[in-house]
Amino acid sequence: MGTRVAVAGASGYAGGELLRLIAGHPELQLTAATAHQQAGAAAGQVHPQLAATALGEWPLVATDPAALGEADLIFLALPHGESAALAARLPASAKVVDLGADHRLVDPAAWTEWYGGPHAGAWTYGLPELPGHRSAIAGADRVAATGCYAATVTLALAPLLAAGLVEPADVVVVAASGTSGAGRAAKPHLLASEVMGGLSPYKVGAHQHVPEIKQATGAASISFTPLLAPMPRGILATVTARPARSVTVDEAREVLDTAYQGEPFVRLLPAGQWPHTGATLGANTCLLQAGVDRDSGRVLVTSALDNLGKGAAGQAVQCANLMLGLPETAGLATIGVAP
Amino acid sequence: MGTRVAVAGASGYAGGELLRLIAGHPELQLTAATAHQQAGAAAGQVHPQLAATALGEWPLVATDPAALGEADLIFLALPHGESAALAARLPASAKVVDLGADHRLVDPAAWTEWYGGPHAGAWTYGLPELPGHRSAIAGADRVAATGCYAATVTLALAPLLAAGLVEPADVVVVAASGTSGAGRAAKPHLLASEVMGGLSPYKVGAHQHVPEIKQATGAASISFTPLLAPMPRGILATVTARPARSVTVDEAREVLDTAYQGEPFVRLLPAGQWPHTGATLGANTCLLQAGVDRDSGRVLVTSALDNLGKGAAGQAVQCANLMLGLPETAGLATIGVAP
Amino acid sequence: MGTRVAVAGASGYAGGELLRLIAGHPELQLTAATAHQQAGAAAGQVHPQLAATALGEWPLVATDPAALGEADLIFLALPHGESAALAARLPASAKVVDLGADHRLVDPAAWTEWYGGPHAGAWTYGLPELPGHRSAIAGADRVAATGCYAATVTLALAPLLAAGLVEPADVVVVAASGTSGAGRAAKPHLLASEVMGGLSPYKVGAHQHVPEIKQATGAASISFTPLLAPMPRGILATVTARPARSVTVDEAREVLDTAYQGEPFVRLLPAGQWPHTGATLGANTCLLQAGVDRDSGRVLVTSALDNLGKGAAGQAVQCANLMLGLPETAGLATIGVAP
Amino acid sequence: MGTRVAVAGASGYAGGELLRLIAGHPELQLTAATAHQQAGAAAGQVHPQLAATALGEWPLVATDPAALGEADLIFLALPHGESAALAARLPASAKVVDLGADHRLVDPAAWTEWYGGPHAGAWTYGLPELPGHRSAIAGADRVAATGCYAATVTLALAPLLAAGLVEPADVVVVAASGTSGAGRAAKPHLLASEVMGGLSPYKVGAHQHVPEIKQATGAASISFTPLLAPMPRGILATVTARPARSVTVDEAREVLDTAYQGEPFVRLLPAGQWPHTGATLGANTCLLQAGVDRDSGRVLVTSALDNLGKGAAGQAVQCANLMLGLPETAGLATIGVAP
Repeated sequence: MGTRVAVAGASGYAGGELLRLIAGHPELQLTAATAHQQAGAAAGQVHPQLAATALGEWPLVATDPAALGEADLIFLALPHGESAALAARLPASAKVVDLGADHRLVDPAAWTEWYGGPHAGAWTYGLPELPGHRSAIAGADRVAATGCYAATVTLALAPLLAAGLVEPADVVVVAASGTSGAGRAAKPHLLASEVMGGLSPYKVGAHQHVPEIKQATGAASISFTPLLAPMPRGILATVTARPARSVTVDEAREVLDTAYQGEPFVRLLPAGQWPHTGATLGANTCLLQAGVDRDSGRVLVTSALDNLGKGAAGQAVQCANLMLGLPETAGLATIGVAP
Repeated sequence: MGTRVAVAGASGYAGGELLRLIAGHPELQLTAATAHQQAGAAAGQVHPQLAATALGEWPLVATDPAALGEADLIFLALPHGESAALAARLPASAKVVDLGADHRLVDPAAWTEWYGGPHAGAWTYGLPELPGHRSAIAGADRVAATGCYAATVTLALAPLLAAGLVEPADVVVVAASGTSGAGRAAKPHLLASEVMGGLSPYKVGAHQHVPEIKQATGAASISFTPLLAPMPRGILATVTARPARSVTVDEAREVLDTAYQGEPFVRLLPAGQWPHTGATLGANTCLLQAGVDRDSGRVLVTSALDNLGKGAAGQAVQCANLMLGLPETAGLATIGVAP
Repeated sequence: MGTRVAVAGASGYAGGELLRLIAGHPELQLTAATAHQQAGAAAGQVHPQLAATALGEWPLVATDPAALGEADLIFLALPHGESAALAARLPASAKVVDLGADHRLVDPAAWTEWYGGPHAGAWTYGLPELPGHRSAIAGADRVAATGCYAATVTLALAPLLAAGLVEPADVVVVAASGTSGAGRAAKPHLLASEVMGGLSPYKVGAHQHVPEIKQATGAASISFTPLLAPMPRGILATVTARPARSVTVDEAREVLDTAYQGEPFVRLLPAGQWPHTGATLGANTCLLQAGVDRDSGRVLVTSALDNLGKGAAGQAVQCANLMLGLPETAGLATIGVAP
Repeated sequence: MGTRVAVAGASGYAGGELLRLIAGHPELQLTAATAHQQAGAAAGQVHPQLAATALGEWPLVATDPAALGEADLIFLALPHGESAALAARLPASAKVVDLGADHRLVDPAAWTEWYGGPHAGAWTYGLPELPGHRSAIAGADRVAATGCYAATVTLALAPLLAAGLVEPADVVVVAASGTSGAGRAAKPHLLASEVMGGLSPYKVGAHQHVPEIKQATGAASISFTPLLAPMPRGILATVTARPARSVTVDEAREVLDTAYQGEPFVRLLPAGQWPHTGATLGANTCLLQAGVDRDSGRVLVTSALDNLGKGAAGQAVQCANLMLGLPETAGLATIGVAP
């Protein structure tokens, strides 16, 4: 029979990836997929990749607690700021994983500063690889999955800070994302003609994932610059921090290796091999490599993942697996589709 | 325990895709992966996507019958012209799926004309969706999987010809392939700088898949122009043919629909929706749509698949599943990774 | 001082390319650039490439005959169907080059069939390389520049038909365009996430450039399939036709070579070298190569150009040069920006 | 008649761009183009964009002082480490612009540390926009043009340091380059299949442009991480530095605006508009924008240019113009080919 799951916001890119993962999951069974403007359309019209299967004919219905409420677990893949209102109307009996930002921040002031408006309250933060988080997620009914940039940066940075290797007040991050991270709304600057063949920054020095990264890693200050890259998926983050003391590459690698020993989805690459976002396509994998800058001595970690995989839908399914008592890796690939 | 399989030519793109599919297959177990120049390297060094798992440490060994021969089934993913010699030295007890061209053509003269040199003899042709082929493959010990272009074009064209809808002597095909179809040898014209942002033809009017398509479809004459497209994976074929009589879109669709009724991997899209190669990425899926040209009346079928999926490694695993008595869809995705 | 020119529809991609070409033209001087929704914006906000110069601060004004009428020559770069109404209100003293389709077709019935609505009447067709057209354009006050696909296909096909080498009733064309050819309106299927990494057909068998190509070449029937390719600019057309008699590659090349002898912007490549769209980027160049299909004997010409260059703005400036008595090549590059 | 120029290393990407720029230059006339492996080939075979013109038939000859020596000015576009030996054999009467690294560094120890081997001595550094450099270049017979990353970063950073706005010992740079920056040698990791659709770092923390940037800007320490981006051309550098005191965006912009007042090729964009590499394609333009990071207070400048334009061949022609007493902008575009 399987566990019944529903997806709110199934017409976006994260929603489409959730439908793909649910279709390939051995235990999950879709009961409802909802949308706003696309309600009434078949899933395969909205997501051409689904048209290859019977799931392509699945009708998207209007987003509504009644449509969702029969599921054992509900994924919310809505624009930031829209999930809290819906979540409040969902039955307490249903577990919920929110892929949006509404319930990620603990500090109401940080929420108001970076997102505006009143805070809806924090849920359990959905990054199982952080110390203590796996069991918290397993015991939670409401989980706020991480932001895509936040996951990429946090997995690189948290162990360095926890080990005292780097200064919490001097972290500089430049992270480039594929266009699916910017969503599916038809905005002029996201047109293929504009994006292909070039690179540009956006939300410079003011991206809303900054407080989330600080909260998740304990960093005191982060300079964060996001770039839009000419690729559909993938995030590559270059995370550099001033060393707290003289640090060698081996020490930095040792810290990461220890932190992720036994983790199925986070991998420190062999020495000398650097992450490529293409290697994570469609998988729930984060690839890491550490270095020490020759001239400045800064510690550097490069982190790569699929923004719709470990950065969104894959992460959410991983959390759902934990919440439902299923094997954590069920339905999730670790090997990306490459080249 | 699982069925033991080996891959010869594991360092190329088709070989890498085979390793990915085998790793995710519920019944297959890898016993050996061989390479020429890359022998001695770890699989994850050669295929970065494998570095996310323990498979990344799997050592590639030299291509040699002894290394391969303990497997129950051996995949040959070698350059055209190299598999016949190796195949002759493999134990008769091992089943073999050849992804190369060496054993595809029945007519020795066609082999000599298009490939040169002596013909190694034909094996069972590995396109299960052709009439009668599924059972032949299931009963065979040696199968020649289809060429990537041949699969794309044949799935579009064969039913039209079989139904007598179009003239076998007037078929015109233009098919664009992603660069992985051109292999992994470091040739100057395959450099990213050369390929990105532009489109160009190659082997114009003289591609070696022509005789294979004619053999598989019964076409009497094919004009075939391949293009190199700025994408890593995917083939989009535009197959047009002069109608044998006045043909409507509905008739053409009906013929395709009937031909692929119940097929898990070939899908006629709903009327009005055209195939996009991106929707097949990483899947063993071929998407089809038919039309009739308004001005000329020619019947037209567009066919899209992943050249490394249904065009190579996926097709080969599908054949292997049949040969081994496993469920035909085992270990194969139908939903592509998109966008 | 220079000749005063104005651009209506300066916010689109063809409009932006016109502004770039005018800025680099030794004789033309911009007097007005108009837009609809973007009226009020500076040119450099709308076209970031212009922001590198003082032209970036040039204000776009509302599209209006008064704003345009002081120019000696006016370029209309408006959506199809919008230029006729504006053209009717422009002063007779101003020369006009229309980049839209409104005045291309001679046959009112063809207009109504393919575009709908009443026909605005034909202007001199702006493809100087066709026999007799250069002098006609030089003497005209109103010129309808060619469509992007029409230019690509016509330059390949017209000489073959004129020489009687191929059958006018059996022409099959597949042409792939970069996304700028689809315009700048923010439509979901033109998002970078949708387009990058894949290929798909559109308007299959029913593209409105068919009657234009037939009119310009004398073809009796054309099967035309357009594809959307993952690149910002460029069209690659594969034009095949049944030979009227047995034709060799040398004969086909000879016909093209003769047709374009001395032409500055159309080039038959040396034998064995095939056109690459990337080689035409930013230039007013069309590259050609001919072949004969080995299996079918069909004559084949591959044609490549920049859809915004020789396919739109470059072509329009070339016509304007002729109309104004300037050197035909003034302000136009022949060497593309590659790689 | 024009000034006679020659290009050594005309088969690479920078060499090809030099040939394109020389062909469009009103004063320069090509006398020789040399190559190693490609000697004997026609320029249009090696650079397809040149095949559109008579220049396509220009024969590349072996690299040799005699072949080059009749020119008034010689461009050296050779791999790093190869230009010094050739330069020593060129006639003193010929002016030389070296696009390679051999003569950029003043400090022999820095050369030996970062490049290895003995130092060939420094030439006048070819970045005209640095204080005092324009007149030095105009008076020089030997000029070492800047490295592509060095130009991108230096133009962003030098004014901030000169104005005392930021700390020279705390500069962190992440810069992404298109693949043409990695040259034209057919290396496996530069294949289109590997590069398209993904992003990866390389030479992490150890790129040889670091000492050049330090020398040109006066920075005391730089953390520099280069990325390979899926685009053929363009560099986007994110340059961040710890402020020496509290700095506002307006102050940072003011410093850049003052530094580049009147410069034809370096442009501070209007407030709120961020550089896009695509806007610089084929031009000799560098686009800048400044910001201050909201959380960390770091000063940030984004810098974009075409690595083959202002980052290589364009820069070299700009220097040549100065050395030859020609208008500095002759033959150089400021508006990029976009989209």
